[in-house]
Amino acid sequence: MRKLSAFLSLSLDGCFADAAGGVDWAHSDDPEFQRFVADNARGGGALLMGRVTYEMMAAWWPSEAARQMSPVVAEGMNRMPKYLVSHRPRNPEWAHTVQLAGALPEAVRALKGEAGPDIAILGSGSLVSQLAGAGLIDEFQFVVCPLVLAGGRKVFEGLEDALALQLTESRSFASGQVFLRYRPA
Amino acid sequence: MRKLSAFLSLSLDGCFADAAGGVDWAHSDDPEFQRFVADNARGGGALLMGRVTYEMMAAWWPSEAARQMSPVVAEGMNRMPKYLVSHRPRNPEWAHTVQLAGALPEAVRALKGEAGPDIAILGSGSLVSQLAGAGLIDEFQFVVCPLVLAGGRKVFEGLEDALALQLTESRSFASGQVFLRYRPA
Repeated sequence: MRKLSAFLSLSLDGCFADAAGGVDWAHSDDPEFQRFVADNARGGGALLMGRVTYEMMAAWWPSEAARQMSPVVAEGMNRMPKYLVSHRPRNPEWAHTVQLAGALPEAVRALKGEAGPDIAILGSGSLVSQLAGAGLIDEFQFVVCPLVLAGGRKVFEGLEDALALQLTESRSFASGQVFLRYRPA
Repeated sequence: MRKLSAFLSLSLDGCFADAAGGVDWAHSDDPEFQRFVADNARGGGALLMGRVTYEMMAAWWPSEAARQMSPVVAEGMNRMPKYLVSHRPRNPEWAHTVQLAGALPEAVRALKGEAGPDIAILGSGSLVSQLAGAGLIDEFQFVVCPLVLAGGRKVFEGLEDALALQLTESRSFASGQVFLRYRPA
């Protein structure tokens, strides 16, 4: 069974995106944090994304600007296998993308049962809610950012049952970001 | 000027209370965490609370059960000066309570200007939103609990402007709770 982890940046008021859907507020120039993100991207995993996150990333990572600004992360993002969840048929242009066929959560359950590397969900807050509710997420990785957004898209919206987690790692950065890793309790 | 800090337990979906207003989910038997809370209560500060939090605490801390279960914290809670914020006149029975006169945020601004010990807001999520919006909170202390409540009272609800913070301390406990301390950036 492939392990499925979710990686989300969070504001202190529990948002994964601002009211306009933006995630610029989660960015940090802290070199230690940048190295941490680059090490994560260097791994041999696959990515799973909802349509909104996918379109945002597909517009950035293949660009020349991204290659210059974050060469290691860009190389990893462009090379990794990517699974796209979308209600409508799409023709994804970002290299190594496959659109998942079938409805959630069954499509993801099937994907986890196939041979292949572990899978990380990037952003994709509504996807995380659905898959967490179905018990399909094996690990949650949050980056708690040092700000209150005062409005935005709340994490775990629509989740119906409480979810007890177990903290397995915590680490703070000079930028004030705090990385927290959990698995279902 | 007296320093005003806010102390709130948070779920991973950004709630300070569950849908019924309860905070039992934030409780931990972890002895290290208990010691940490007891050390906090041992300090010589004053407390500021909204009506809901006040009534919950006033029903518990003076009780014989509280004295037996958490003697150090109970002694501190009962001894400390307490300020109650409520729209209606009350006749608070918990020892050392004064109801703040006048409207927010002016009443709290005036209180900070008086002589006296530093002040901690316990719980009181809507009070925290109002006072944070008025720039009156000098420090935020959050205990991030290892669970997703899936519904409840969201922290910083009603806050109109984003609030940038600076992380000054982070500490995790074996229970999975993570203590995060911030000041306004």
